Amino acid sequence: MNFHYPNGKRYVPKTNTAAPKIRKEKNFAYSNRGMTLEEDLNETNLYYLEQNIAVIHKKPTPVQIVNVDYPKRSAAVIKEAYFKQASTTDYNGVYKGKYIDFEAKETKFTSSFPLKNFHTHQIRHMRDVLSHQGVCFVILRFTSLEEVFLLEASYLLSFWDRMEEGGRKSITKEEVEKYGHQIPLGFQPRIDYIKVIDYLYNLS
Amino acid sequence: MNFHYPNGKRYVPKTNTAAPKIRKEKNFAYSNRGMTLEEDLNETNLYYLEQNIAVIHKKPTPVQIVNVDYPKRSAAVIKEAYFKQASTTDYNGVYKGKYIDFEAKETKFTSSFPLKNFHTHQIRHMRDVLSHQGVCFVILRFTSLEEVFLLEASYLLSFWDRMEEGGRKSITKEEVEKYGHQIPLGFQPRIDYIKVIDYLYNLS
Repeated sequence: MNFHYPNGKRYVPKTNTAAPKIRKEKNFAYSNRGMTLEEDLNETNLYYLEQNIAVIHKKPTPVQIVNVDYPKRSAAVIKEAYFKQASTTDYNGVYKGKYIDFEAKETKFTSSFPLKNFHTHQIRHMRDVLSHQGVCFVILRFTSLEEVFLLEASYLLSFWDRMEEGGRKSITKEEVEKYGHQIPLGFQPRIDYIKVIDYLYNLS
Repeated sequence: MNFHYPNGKRYVPKTNTAAPKIRKEKNFAYSNRGMTLEEDLNETNLYYLEQNIAVIHKKPTPVQIVNVDYPKRSAAVIKEAYFKQASTTDYNGVYKGKYIDFEAKETKFTSSFPLKNFHTHQIRHMRDVLSHQGVCFVILRFTSLEEVFLLEASYLLSFWDRMEEGGRKSITKEEVEKYGHQIPLGFQPRIDYIKVIDYLYNLS
């Protein structure tokens, strides 16, 4: 049965499809659109996949499984597990035959990007990828500014080395602007980073 | 305090470092060396990494996390989670700039390799990788025979299509031998599949 309201329009129940997901995570930061960088990149990668542009996936979160319960007639339940530190970056895949590998991080700061966002394992992995001619970079989001940059791993590694030699523990915003490439934000794809790869590697 | 036994030798407690791990997994099969295919490939990939030959990693097992406990002063404990079906293959990485992507499966059968070892998602992913000029293949182990083969994804996809069209649900051993490439088993690396890639793509 449908009720008719004073405006004469048929009542349509509200759906929640457009509601932003609320997560209880530490260091969680909303962009103005209510999407995390990870969600934006997952949608971008899905767009690339469906449009047959590139095959790039986020790796699953590494988990150390300690105890699993196998109830009869239903799926196995993991009862005890712990988060493990990733030994690689989060995203990889293939674009025009090339190996693509990157990590994505966001900060609330506006004047610099802290290097503590990256782990030693990930830095080591980036060096390995570069030495095997992979395309390796980081995607950095300044959440409050709504600005996203692609910075090639070679530059990130230089800034990391500077820190190891006693220098500053972050990349200044000016350095990100100078050595990185700002990625225009769109609706579909949201973060079109492949365009920057085309430009850098003359692939288009 | 050290006890001296009749043979005059100092007592050294036994350690378990060389003992094979006992796992309670379904379809679990030991090779004669007591190593699973996954363990052999992880050691092979570690060897490739340390010898600076290639950067190839197994992706973490995908898990749907439902409930996490954050006890004070200790690490977060995952209290409820479920295994998810992988949407891609298990292994990928970079070798001489090329994108490498593969899945590894074993069977106890000796005369054929059942195709039910692969999931639709993985087959779809292999098609995607091939269409973007990635190097894609499967590593098949006949556990009882101690034989390991590399079969290019293009052939696996043909056998899959044959099944979809009503044909047999497996690849015969003869077909694996004809279209695949047997990988000699060694000590280090254990399953030297990169040599087959060198041969197939003229990379050496």
